[in-house]
Amino acid sequence: MPVYEDPIDGVRLDAGALLRWTTSVVQRLGAPGDIAADVAELLIASDLRGIASHGTARLPQYAKLAEAGVMDPAGRPVLERGKPALSLFDAQNGFGHHAGRVAIDHAIERAGEAGTAIAVVRNSNHYGIAGWYAMRAASAGMIGMSLTNTSPLVAPTRARVSMLGTNPIAVAAPAGKYGMLVLDMATSTIPRGRIEVAARRGEPLPIGWAIGSDGSPATTPELALSGSLQPLGGEESTAGYKGYGLSLIVELFTGILAGAAFGPNIIGLFSTAGKSDLGQFYMAIDPGAIGDTNAFVSRLEQLIDQLIDAPLIPDAPGPVLYPGQPEAERAQKQQRDGIVIDREHYDSLLSIAERFAIALPDAL
Amino acid sequence: MPVYEDPIDGVRLDAGALLRWTTSVVQRLGAPGDIAADVAELLIASDLRGIASHGTARLPQYAKLAEAGVMDPAGRPVLERGKPALSLFDAQNGFGHHAGRVAIDHAIERAGEAGTAIAVVRNSNHYGIAGWYAMRAASAGMIGMSLTNTSPLVAPTRARVSMLGTNPIAVAAPAGKYGMLVLDMATSTIPRGRIEVAARRGEPLPIGWAIGSDGSPATTPELALSGSLQPLGGEESTAGYKGYGLSLIVELFTGILAGAAFGPNIIGLFSTAGKSDLGQFYMAIDPGAIGDTNAFVSRLEQLIDQLIDAPLIPDAPGPVLYPGQPEAERAQKQQRDGIVIDREHYDSLLSIAERFAIALPDAL
Repeated sequence: MPVYEDPIDGVRLDAGALLRWTTSVVQRLGAPGDIAADVAELLIASDLRGIASHGTARLPQYAKLAEAGVMDPAGRPVLERGKPALSLFDAQNGFGHHAGRVAIDHAIERAGEAGTAIAVVRNSNHYGIAGWYAMRAASAGMIGMSLTNTSPLVAPTRARVSMLGTNPIAVAAPAGKYGMLVLDMATSTIPRGRIEVAARRGEPLPIGWAIGSDGSPATTPELALSGSLQPLGGEESTAGYKGYGLSLIVELFTGILAGAAFGPNIIGLFSTAGKSDLGQFYMAIDPGAIGDTNAFVSRLEQLIDQLIDAPLIPDAPGPVLYPGQPEAERAQKQQRDGIVIDREHYDSLLSIAERFAIALPDAL
Repeated sequence: MPVYEDPIDGVRLDAGALLRWTTSVVQRLGAPGDIAADVAELLIASDLRGIASHGTARLPQYAKLAEAGVMDPAGRPVLERGKPALSLFDAQNGFGHHAGRVAIDHAIERAGEAGTAIAVVRNSNHYGIAGWYAMRAASAGMIGMSLTNTSPLVAPTRARVSMLGTNPIAVAAPAGKYGMLVLDMATSTIPRGRIEVAARRGEPLPIGWAIGSDGSPATTPELALSGSLQPLGGEESTAGYKGYGLSLIVELFTGILAGAAFGPNIIGLFSTAGKSDLGQFYMAIDPGAIGDTNAFVSRLEQLIDQLIDAPLIPDAPGPVLYPGQPEAERAQKQQRDGIVIDREHYDSLLSIAERFAIALPDAL
């Protein structure tokens, strides 16, 4: 639950206008309208929630992959095999966002019949924020879960090289007056982008975030950027092996189960050296299959009531939060007032706008 | 992946003999033979794997609960409601171990038909090691998962009181020449028992393990024992909110989904103030439903090959491990040479043996 701050010297863009512009750009890359709509919705949802690293700021990279021919913007997922509650899709090397939308919708529909259902996807690409797919199930009154493997950036406990990705875990559930509970977390202590922020700010790093290329704790961003992230928990003495274990379980449920690339065999993030062949996992669980969904939601509301009212530690920066709360507040504000992006991000969109001759919406 | 050491002044008991003795004791508490067999198998599996805190050392507490009438040793789980891939059981306040064995077997059977299946259990009790149930699915060639909520011992990020349990996550999968991958981890940085060990050894505590009752970091075991454990990740600056989020997700999948007690409303561990009403979650996923199970196992073997061969950090205490490796090695050794338990544990078994007039097997 990071606290988001508006970037200094930021630019404000209307969310609806940015969505339409993004859709046009993705179509220009070669995606049919329905695929472009899925991609754009995901990217804008990410920007709205304050997760700039997974939103429209990635458009230049997607363009690069499409132009290099290592991703097929028109690729559509194909259902390969399965049983009533477990399905395997081949994403046909298309946008991960579209394959994911199709797969979670499939899981939601099947869960309505069987009580729960899983869809796994192979031959996929970067899919944006894991939380979006889980939230789609929560919008349907179900518990949703989404996992993806990613390019190796994390060193397992005791190793000095990156063998696993930041492999996120996302779970969401409808939470009544609280909207939704949305956990969306990388299984590394922090994402790589946080180290880039520390580099810009000239900050030292706490122990447990990263190691240098020699395997020693990285106390500066420079050492960290040439080394590896540490799994959640950090050092072995503070149970970093649990974060390593979680990252490995995400790999098990995605690359290993779906028959995609896995672990150290996945190519670099947005590399054009070949196709990504990522694996993704989607699950929906229908509480209505075993009880009253309203009662389920009430229990969750009551638990959140209790959590946010807990007495605080000294110097707490604010009240106890529930997962997804800051992101939801941010999204509501930005939907109303516009999405604030930093200057570098804005310049990259301007450059795309110019290249494709699709005028970027005016800043607010 | 803690490194286990034989206790100083330990006593060695034959695993098979201890299993038979434990079965007799549990029957004497009022459990029918099949229920007692499940409980005993779980407790011995825990002792064999070196997790003494969840094995036969708990017999005095189970006896206390049965004798106080807050747990029904003869209680049998009843299937209440469900659809093909999601079932709800009422454990009828019986042993959690038996309800769990029935529930995971149900999930395995259903997963064989549907591809995946979940069974959740309410009105349950302490169920021993979460990993055992996941391993049962792995023995059947599937991915297994098991979760339970537990008595509040963990303070959410920013809170100074215990609101959630150490809520474990267990996942297992068949791993060919490596036997099984078994992740079985509390979502707190460390278990409470580790602080008791530090107290006996007079060790200071690292930041991130626990807070005192005033909410400040507990740097001594004494402060920690009167306070709360911290979630995996520790402080907010080292992403402790992720461990808090994981603990909350376990609560969502167990107490909230199953309609059991949840969060701060669960009574204290082994308290006789009332029944526990714990919630538990079991899932089986059949890789054979979407591909060749042997190919799935080969991929996992290959990933483990790569992980354990990774170059090491300076001063690494040993090679990279895979989850469940130290426990499996320990179990194999103790199955052959006998289970080594510490003197306090041995004395508690002697006292039970005397009370029920069931002679404890001779020490080896």
